[in-house]
Amino acid sequence: MKNLRINLNKRFQLWGLMLLMFLVPMAYASGGNSKIPEYFLWIAVLLLLAKSSSFIEKIKQPAVLGELIMGVLLGNAVLIGFGWFEPMKHDPIILFLAELGVVILLFQIGLESYIEEMKKVGLQALFVALVGVITPFALGYFAGMWLMPGLEQNAYLFLGATLTATSVGITGRVFKDLNKLQTKEAQIVLGAAVIDDVMGLIILAVVSAIVTTGAVSVGAISIITAKAVVFLVGALVLGSFFAPLVNRMFSMIHSGHGMKFSVAIILCLIFAYLAHLAGLAPIVGAFAAGLMLEPVHFKVFDDPAINKNIQAAIADADENIRNKVNKELDRFNDQHLDRLVAPLGDFLVPLFFIVTGMQVNLATLSDPKIIGIALIITAIAFVGKLVSGLVAGPGVNKWIIGWGMAPRGEVGLIFAMIGKQLGVISDELFSVVIIMVILTTLLTPPILSYLLRKQEAG
Amino acid sequence: MKNLRINLNKRFQLWGLMLLMFLVPMAYASGGNSKIPEYFLWIAVLLLLAKSSSFIEKIKQPAVLGELIMGVLLGNAVLIGFGWFEPMKHDPIILFLAELGVVILLFQIGLESYIEEMKKVGLQALFVALVGVITPFALGYFAGMWLMPGLEQNAYLFLGATLTATSVGITGRVFKDLNKLQTKEAQIVLGAAVIDDVMGLIILAVVSAIVTTGAVSVGAISIITAKAVVFLVGALVLGSFFAPLVNRMFSMIHSGHGMKFSVAIILCLIFAYLAHLAGLAPIVGAFAAGLMLEPVHFKVFDDPAINKNIQAAIADADENIRNKVNKELDRFNDQHLDRLVAPLGDFLVPLFFIVTGMQVNLATLSDPKIIGIALIITAIAFVGKLVSGLVAGPGVNKWIIGWGMAPRGEVGLIFAMIGKQLGVISDELFSVVIIMVILTTLLTPPILSYLLRKQEAG
Repeated sequence: MKNLRINLNKRFQLWGLMLLMFLVPMAYASGGNSKIPEYFLWIAVLLLLAKSSSFIEKIKQPAVLGELIMGVLLGNAVLIGFGWFEPMKHDPIILFLAELGVVILLFQIGLESYIEEMKKVGLQALFVALVGVITPFALGYFAGMWLMPGLEQNAYLFLGATLTATSVGITGRVFKDLNKLQTKEAQIVLGAAVIDDVMGLIILAVVSAIVTTGAVSVGAISIITAKAVVFLVGALVLGSFFAPLVNRMFSMIHSGHGMKFSVAIILCLIFAYLAHLAGLAPIVGAFAAGLMLEPVHFKVFDDPAINKNIQAAIADADENIRNKVNKELDRFNDQHLDRLVAPLGDFLVPLFFIVTGMQVNLATLSDPKIIGIALIITAIAFVGKLVSGLVAGPGVNKWIIGWGMAPRGEVGLIFAMIGKQLGVISDELFSVVIIMVILTTLLTPPILSYLLRKQEAG
Repeated sequence: MKNLRINLNKRFQLWGLMLLMFLVPMAYASGGNSKIPEYFLWIAVLLLLAKSSSFIEKIKQPAVLGELIMGVLLGNAVLIGFGWFEPMKHDPIILFLAELGVVILLFQIGLESYIEEMKKVGLQALFVALVGVITPFALGYFAGMWLMPGLEQNAYLFLGATLTATSVGITGRVFKDLNKLQTKEAQIVLGAAVIDDVMGLIILAVVSAIVTTGAVSVGAISIITAKAVVFLVGALVLGSFFAPLVNRMFSMIHSGHGMKFSVAIILCLIFAYLAHLAGLAPIVGAFAAGLMLEPVHFKVFDDPAINKNIQAAIADADENIRNKVNKELDRFNDQHLDRLVAPLGDFLVPLFFIVTGMQVNLATLSDPKIIGIALIITAIAFVGKLVSGLVAGPGVNKWIIGWGMAPRGEVGLIFAMIGKQLGVISDELFSVVIIMVILTTLLTPPILSYLLRKQEAG
């Protein structure tokens, strides 16, 4: 035993433990007799596999890609005779947790989206976002009609809508990983991605409503657009009106982090429900709640030992140093809400991506025509966003901006998932969209880092 | 508008906002057409009401009591014609979330239970715990047979088992609130409460298994006890064996908090499932996972600005001060796992208590006999624990220890809930148990603080 442990390196031990945790319960999985404990096992296994897939980060790819690919593998394990994951695909509790996960994710994205940032990059970002939404939408709509004739109008609309997405998470991550967040290109791309998010959610609301109500008249679209804009703008106005109140409320709460976190989650869920009442997707409401709460900073650590202890430790230092340390402590204590929401996201968001991946039917790929269409749509997805770089104005590298806008990431997936739930997107079209999302998400980071390094060198 | 705002004080504004958040969606609740967004509303409303009930903390009562009473009110709102909450009582998704909540709660209690603390208070705590388990169990069993003749044997067993519980959370909180955690009495009570938790979970496992399998032979009880002990001891041995590995694993994880949190939750859920496979309640496994992970400390903040920034701020200070500050930073960074798990608990645990409260049928209280029985059982619950103070040994205030053991809190509720799920505990008996839990939890804090202040005075 001891020899064995010495021979195994640490990494192997880690994976061995994970494998053990996974296999032991699997072997006994048939022994259960109540349903709820089985959900505990399901969730544990899904989370474990989602987290195992994060080795993909080692090769500089976003974790979401790993979760998605893992989901595709699990959802198609039945093709090689392993049907253990099959019942999860349509289980109401698993689907509910996944849906709650995407609501929490959009809430987090809302919390991370700063209206102030959009103002700074201003018009350039707005132009990039507009072109980056209109071009892929139009290209996708017409390419869909050309490549897959005979589908209903709504399917083409959804394909176009899905192509408009930009993953602010992935884009931001690449710039951050390469320490380029402060470049003008990064500022424009991030601003444009945020505007893109908002426009994308409006498009999603419009397209969803068209699908649900069947209305395609200009009047109906205007009403839906107005509704979405009123809802988002209303949430922001309400937000800036109530933010000081919420802030004061939060500062009145002395019963630890629990209450602050709960108030945030309650707002997120209520806005998700209100969006649903307004005929929008619940995620639109969650995003609005996040944007609204964004200005609310508060003390995460009200009474931690760190303040008292460090202040005691520097009691004998001179005043200059004491002031500097106190400033840093204040800055640290003034944490952002997203830190509190993160664990809930860590629990639920991977379930959304893995369950989304599970909906991909690889059997549809036996048709080489589907693969061909997916590749053409992917090319269109890149072209549509690269064009947006051209309007970024002078003094910036247009290629970097174009490629920065390219990854569809989680936003594209959310669109596809909603389309599938609404019954607009067939299995084939869903596979096409998922391949497009995977390829744009997978190919962008290496290309972008090549361009950024080239810019630095030259 | 401005005048209005000036006239309203801050507290009123806070409650007004909460009321608004609550009423607006309620008014439109009938407008929805999909099921999932409605769950968002349900959860938001339940969380909001659970958190609103925390005003009870202002009158020095534990929050759990407020959640419970709120649950009782909501669950019986139908008696005054308000049936909006009725479908939640038996909704599979709400019940699943509540069940997940109690699993997370026991995981948290396990994380907070230190084996080292038990060792220090040693034999005294063990005696108190043993007497504090045996006396209420015997008294409850026989009192049940005397007061409610004609029920099945299992009902009396469950009543006795429920009376054995001690809420380590509530007990600890009272001592902490009064700044008495370092007294010998507090150490003994906390140690005994932890041992009580473990014994209580074994009793719960035994009683549950007896109910499920129908076995009441001494041989069967021995097997179940052995199974429970082997499971718990096994988890602890495995835990101390794997803890360094898990610790190393955690320190290898550089991808932020997400991974550490996920590994902890995965272990919690897998142990909950394994306990179920071993014929125990899932919460026993969650508790074991918490105990097992307890020695695993790790850096919560791997790469926060605080380390770098504060170190920069003290760069000019003399070495002595720099060392002291660095020591404090290290101590701060070495956070405990429960801080990461807390938000998930904040989200799910109140759902458990409020849903538990909802199961109380106030209609059963129209029978004065039930109220009489509940009061006698409550008296027995106090006597059973006060007796345990007598064996606490010399040099301590026996009354403080006895009353310290009295609150049943969440542990008693978990017992009652499991008994109800198993069909052993009737509506009447459940009401009796809930009243006992509420009264022991409600009356103890004021009495204990009176005794502690009297001891201090002289």
